[in-house]
Amino acid sequence: MTTLLHIDSSARTQRSLTRMLSALFVETWKSHDPDARIIRRDLGTNPPPPVSEEWIAAAFIDPEERTSRMSQALAVSDEMIDELLTSDLIVMGAPMYNYGLPAALKAWVDQVVRVGRTFSFDLARGDFPLQSILVGKRLVVLSSRGEFGFAPGGPRDGWNHMNAHLRTVAMQLLGIAESDINEVAVEYQEFKDKRHEQSLFDARKRVIQLVAELHARPIYRLSRSGP
Amino acid sequence: MTTLLHIDSSARTQRSLTRMLSALFVETWKSHDPDARIIRRDLGTNPPPPVSEEWIAAAFIDPEERTSRMSQALAVSDEMIDELLTSDLIVMGAPMYNYGLPAALKAWVDQVVRVGRTFSFDLARGDFPLQSILVGKRLVVLSSRGEFGFAPGGPRDGWNHMNAHLRTVAMQLLGIAESDINEVAVEYQEFKDKRHEQSLFDARKRVIQLVAELHARPIYRLSRSGP
Repeated sequence: MTTLLHIDSSARTQRSLTRMLSALFVETWKSHDPDARIIRRDLGTNPPPPVSEEWIAAAFIDPEERTSRMSQALAVSDEMIDELLTSDLIVMGAPMYNYGLPAALKAWVDQVVRVGRTFSFDLARGDFPLQSILVGKRLVVLSSRGEFGFAPGGPRDGWNHMNAHLRTVAMQLLGIAESDINEVAVEYQEFKDKRHEQSLFDARKRVIQLVAELHARPIYRLSRSGP
Repeated sequence: MTTLLHIDSSARTQRSLTRMLSALFVETWKSHDPDARIIRRDLGTNPPPPVSEEWIAAAFIDPEERTSRMSQALAVSDEMIDELLTSDLIVMGAPMYNYGLPAALKAWVDQVVRVGRTFSFDLARGDFPLQSILVGKRLVVLSSRGEFGFAPGGPRDGWNHMNAHLRTVAMQLLGIAESDINEVAVEYQEFKDKRHEQSLFDARKRVIQLVAELHARPIYRLSRSGP
């Protein structure tokens, strides 16, 4: 049985393109795989708090030594990490806000990237002491961008700090292979013109196709072995 | 009289390198310019909320038609925009969290980038309809990174999604010229070794030098003319 973690991070509940795409992905997946388990995490309507001084202190202390107050500071993090650990595929609705992640989605990243739970840290590894504990998950990023031309050579080349950032987080911190990251985006939203209509049409079509592709690829439950 | 907007975004109040650097910048500035006005905005201890559906609705409606509830949804944004408008130089303590902005700092960006207040939007401008209303401000980004080697050709080339993102926000949305952005960073924090000590020493020295350089450059109060 496949478990999908269905994340939305748009502040909008109405007329959100990323919510529309993530819902389309999940509904299409269910049509292929009616037994799929869906975990829902709506960061847009229920944003997690940014990590606090208390959170940092609690995360870096030996779990045995945590006070109940410290454990409380990590409760939201624990809940979201449990959701992540149990899922095979993360479907993320992620609108670009001011050329980056919505603050609520960044707060989620900072809550789930945690020493001893999602990554280990060991200076004996030399200049690359961090290693992801997670392995073998897949990520689908469904985004929307008001403008266009963010690809290499485009008029806004180098302005998209959302997709590149999510790829680095996924690959360096969540153990997701580059080949297991898929991205679909709607562009031109601000222009409300034919280009936007076409982009939306293409994105919907691509989502449906992507579900078929991913569903056909078996998911192996892997665990990291060795140090 | 110069007005500095002194922003911190570290979740830590103790042992924060970015707070130390931003305080050093401000204290050094005051030694050159005792009459400087300092506006303090601590996002780390007092994170602004992410923008909400209500915020978006309120921001995009004609200000004349805003209900008092809508105005309330924009109150934090208005307060932070007023601080930004009145300042000549923004000194920003910005630790890198998971290769990007702290969520609280991203929430600030999303609160201050607002149509009609910090940027204008006009489709008559063609494919680049956004234009900053602000002009002539300076930005100093004081950051810390646990790791190292983020520069082109380094072992983590392409993983720094914080500084590049802040530059795009500053240049494209806040009307700050590239030559008016300065960055200082402490690296190697995770390694707690001589390289970190050296990096910290260099960063402190650079901050003191940068204050002298920026203080010597006259600040012109500009306003954007024409469409």
